[in-house]
Amino acid sequence: MDASSKPSASLDLKNLAIILVSPRNPLNIGAVARAMSNFGCHDLRLVKVHPPSLEDARSAVGPSADLIATAKEFATVAEAIADCIYVAGTVAPFHRPPSETYASLPAAAPSIRMLLSQQRVALLFGPEKTGLSNDALSHCQQILSIPTTPTLASMNLGQAAAVCLYELSRTHENSLEQKIPAAAPAADLDRITAVLLEALIAADYTAIETASAQQELRQLIRRLHLSAPDARTLTGMLRKIIYRLRLPAG
Amino acid sequence: MDASSKPSASLDLKNLAIILVSPRNPLNIGAVARAMSNFGCHDLRLVKVHPPSLEDARSAVGPSADLIATAKEFATVAEAIADCIYVAGTVAPFHRPPSETYASLPAAAPSIRMLLSQQRVALLFGPEKTGLSNDALSHCQQILSIPTTPTLASMNLGQAAAVCLYELSRTHENSLEQKIPAAAPAADLDRITAVLLEALIAADYTAIETASAQQELRQLIRRLHLSAPDARTLTGMLRKIIYRLRLPAG
Repeated sequence: MDASSKPSASLDLKNLAIILVSPRNPLNIGAVARAMSNFGCHDLRLVKVHPPSLEDARSAVGPSADLIATAKEFATVAEAIADCIYVAGTVAPFHRPPSETYASLPAAAPSIRMLLSQQRVALLFGPEKTGLSNDALSHCQQILSIPTTPTLASMNLGQAAAVCLYELSRTHENSLEQKIPAAAPAADLDRITAVLLEALIAADYTAIETASAQQELRQLIRRLHLSAPDARTLTGMLRKIIYRLRLPAG
Repeated sequence: MDASSKPSASLDLKNLAIILVSPRNPLNIGAVARAMSNFGCHDLRLVKVHPPSLEDARSAVGPSADLIATAKEFATVAEAIADCIYVAGTVAPFHRPPSETYASLPAAAPSIRMLLSQQRVALLFGPEKTGLSNDALSHCQQILSIPTTPTLASMNLGQAAAVCLYELSRTHENSLEQKIPAAAPAADLDRITAVLLEALIAADYTAIETASAQQELRQLIRRLHLSAPDARTLTGMLRKIIYRLRLPAG
């Protein structure tokens, strides 16, 4: 151990939003808020929260009461992530999806830390019993899990959040100052996905009609690392195509 | 990273003993046991535990009930650590003692991991309100803390244990670079560029007619980091759109 190493101030997590989808246990909401306060993260968002659970969590006193009091509520994942340029969803390792966007937390953390230094990032946690649905995961550029043992892979929500926040706030002496082009926010990605879907339907591309095909399309768009200007350009092109597809032949 | 290094499953924490000194909240005892089960650590020891707290923790059902049932009780720290070669004590950063044995968890972890591969190591946690006493700390070869923010430095006991177990179970394999999917070769990119151009012309997107606009389009496609399968999918979609654009209205 280097005796000269000082406890460096941890990475600022002010760009991180923690999003809990349908959390049920008020103690878990409180525990997530406590861990957020420990690691300097203050943006808590709740999707489809059971009202009594939130009331109970809000009635508890404690060092993170303010954070729970100001937590924002949303009806859908899409609304909750609208201003985020990068979305990471957490799953238990045994829920590992057959996806190229999957990585363990330690492997995914360096790139998320780099993004966090410049842009708003969302970290999603699913309901305690079921985890994130495939629909919720289809909004994510990154799916990650904490490496646990197969015999008890599923972590408590508050503890999983603490581990993620610890890992994301980890600092590196030799951190890269790599420049990242401004990525398109989730709302732009939703828009181009919707417009492409509309074009495909107008073109009688029937394979796109199933929910799973549409989730796959959403994932494909998220794999493109679109910048905001490129997303705008492609959306404009697709709108022109839709307009022409709908025009009666002259 | 040496590509030939054998990927070990996850570090075995069977040599780690977690020692809780005078824990008060039964929920915290349960949470520590849950995190231990998650990370393959099964040796829980309790020093001067308040009997009703232990009874309550033992009465709870859950995936870690066995671990709490078999937890060993001790009257002193010295007895609890008697068979351990190395003892690390946890403190909140603001409790940092004026000691050369102090380090942050990420800095202390590599040497503790190395010891764990051969010898029994103890990790001590103090009572929730006060933390480890100077007397308890005097038994430790290593004093460590999780880097948290000064505004709320003290972590919940169950969450602090989860973070320590995560860090100590970290392996080479966990931190492998994320796999990057095979990128589409230039021929695929040329094909999708040509097909998109054809679709735009068929849709009367006149802005695309200049040479510079077409160069810009080629650049845009190359900024997408398309994988080969995604390039094929999008090319297929565009071909369907072109087919439909050229179809006379029915």
